[in-house]
Amino acid sequence: MKSIGITLGDPAGVGPEILVKSLPFLAEQKCFFLLFGDENLLKREAKHYNVFLPSNLKIINLSELKVQPGKPTPESQLATLRYLEEAIRYALSGELKALVTLPINKEVFKLAGLPFRGHTEYLAHTLGAKAPAMSFYGRRLRVTLITTHLPLRDVFSKLEVSKIVEIAQLAYDFTKRLNPRKRELKIALSALNPHAGEGGLLGDEEERLLKPAIKIAQDQGIPLYGPYPADSLFFFASRGYFDHVLSLYHDQGLIPFKLFHFRDGVNVTLGLPIVRTSPVHGTAYDIAGQGKAFPDSFISAVKLALRLSK
Amino acid sequence: MKSIGITLGDPAGVGPEILVKSLPFLAEQKCFFLLFGDENLLKREAKHYNVFLPSNLKIINLSELKVQPGKPTPESQLATLRYLEEAIRYALSGELKALVTLPINKEVFKLAGLPFRGHTEYLAHTLGAKAPAMSFYGRRLRVTLITTHLPLRDVFSKLEVSKIVEIAQLAYDFTKRLNPRKRELKIALSALNPHAGEGGLLGDEEERLLKPAIKIAQDQGIPLYGPYPADSLFFFASRGYFDHVLSLYHDQGLIPFKLFHFRDGVNVTLGLPIVRTSPVHGTAYDIAGQGKAFPDSFISAVKLALRLSK
Repeated sequence: MKSIGITLGDPAGVGPEILVKSLPFLAEQKCFFLLFGDENLLKREAKHYNVFLPSNLKIINLSELKVQPGKPTPESQLATLRYLEEAIRYALSGELKALVTLPINKEVFKLAGLPFRGHTEYLAHTLGAKAPAMSFYGRRLRVTLITTHLPLRDVFSKLEVSKIVEIAQLAYDFTKRLNPRKRELKIALSALNPHAGEGGLLGDEEERLLKPAIKIAQDQGIPLYGPYPADSLFFFASRGYFDHVLSLYHDQGLIPFKLFHFRDGVNVTLGLPIVRTSPVHGTAYDIAGQGKAFPDSFISAVKLALRLSK
Repeated sequence: MKSIGITLGDPAGVGPEILVKSLPFLAEQKCFFLLFGDENLLKREAKHYNVFLPSNLKIINLSELKVQPGKPTPESQLATLRYLEEAIRYALSGELKALVTLPINKEVFKLAGLPFRGHTEYLAHTLGAKAPAMSFYGRRLRVTLITTHLPLRDVFSKLEVSKIVEIAQLAYDFTKRLNPRKRELKIALSALNPHAGEGGLLGDEEERLLKPAIKIAQDQGIPLYGPYPADSLFFFASRGYFDHVLSLYHDQGLIPFKLFHFRDGVNVTLGLPIVRTSPVHGTAYDIAGQGKAFPDSFISAVKLALRLSK
């Protein structure tokens, strides 16, 4: 029986609180969970919220931390990396069917001298995936990004036909897994320029890159359509006209996604050998330890991991 | 008694249908309306929808057109310019307190050899306004654009501190008129780069341009805050944390605006000597003459014009 792995993330952030608030939900699932984290810290947190540790959750204890909420220390930061490393080891030896990661502080990679920007790049490297894609899942919108964490002015040089087609394939595979019985799936490619370039008057990327990418994708059997003006596309996608949207840059996809799914959205990494989901929020140091954190996004991430790993 | 002017816009688009569907609403207003358009065409349309022309609407007849819905002709296109010209003449002689424009085909300016991109530029020129700003009004969001119809890659060179401050002033004046009794107004400036540049890692415009602009604006008494990461800003703005948002480029502002206000949003031109509003949609040739057009956006535009011209 494979388990769902969960990494605790930054113990000084909202991770422990969110995990503990989600334990009643986890207890109800017909599935085993392996938590990579800090046993005593978690037990203290569970006691604080009057919650039992469920029998289908096993803790892999990797640290003995005493942290103040909102105050990460180098020791606590480096512990978050151990949680990840151990989860990867379990994943590589075939013991996990999915991995759900609670938020870390991205500074930790710098602290450890590792050349990664965040979870996604770290997991891609350690799990041996070449070109993963960042995707976002919610009931109203599903969005995958073509480019991610770049200055906006660097987006132009990173948009390539082959990259768009590759990510379209990943998004299509994901969409099929989400809709195994739906016959006709539709994936939309967003335009880059206002009014989709207005026939070249407002930019040439639509003609030069996006239309050729759509042609190649369609020839490969991917139901990719567009490019559509971004300002109306997301309205129509949210009304069900499309199953998935490909966005060309970070904010283009995340502005509409977060409008609908700020609280319950899920981040999914496509193109890894294992299903990996996570909440869309960060460590939220500013509210850590105050009881204010919502577990919705994490619970949605676990639900999606269960659905995708069936 | 000053009137609200309405230009009929493209008679081959949805303008006449929308106007006629709005006549019962116009009839109820304590205000006179001057319609710049085509009397017989409008009477035929009113008869088709079984609607009376109200007594507080006077038609300034400027054409005798026979057009097929969805099929603009050079003759009908040039008539739309006459409607505008005459409305401007009335505005300049002080007979209008506001102008509401129904959609035109932007090709008309090319057809007439005029160097304008659309209504906004045409009105700014003919009414002698230097630097008007495109703004969007809805119940959930109010957004003003710093740059408008440009290829995305040209946005960078058009972002200037002085321009941001000028437009912030226009947006602040507009916000004050909308909230005459509210004490503390808040205007947010959106960031350009993902995560608001993440301290320079993902772009330098926030430090180089946006923060200095905010400083100058605040020194001038404008309650401008930010720059905030665009993907969470619009969520918070839509929840009432801000009264108005300044967006740096077209899609950044219009993706979230249209998600909420695709049907009932209003376009407002700030910085003109006269109040000017319009629906957010275009001529919609594809559904013209089919009875499918919603008058909501136009009615909202008239309501806003009434409110602003009090």
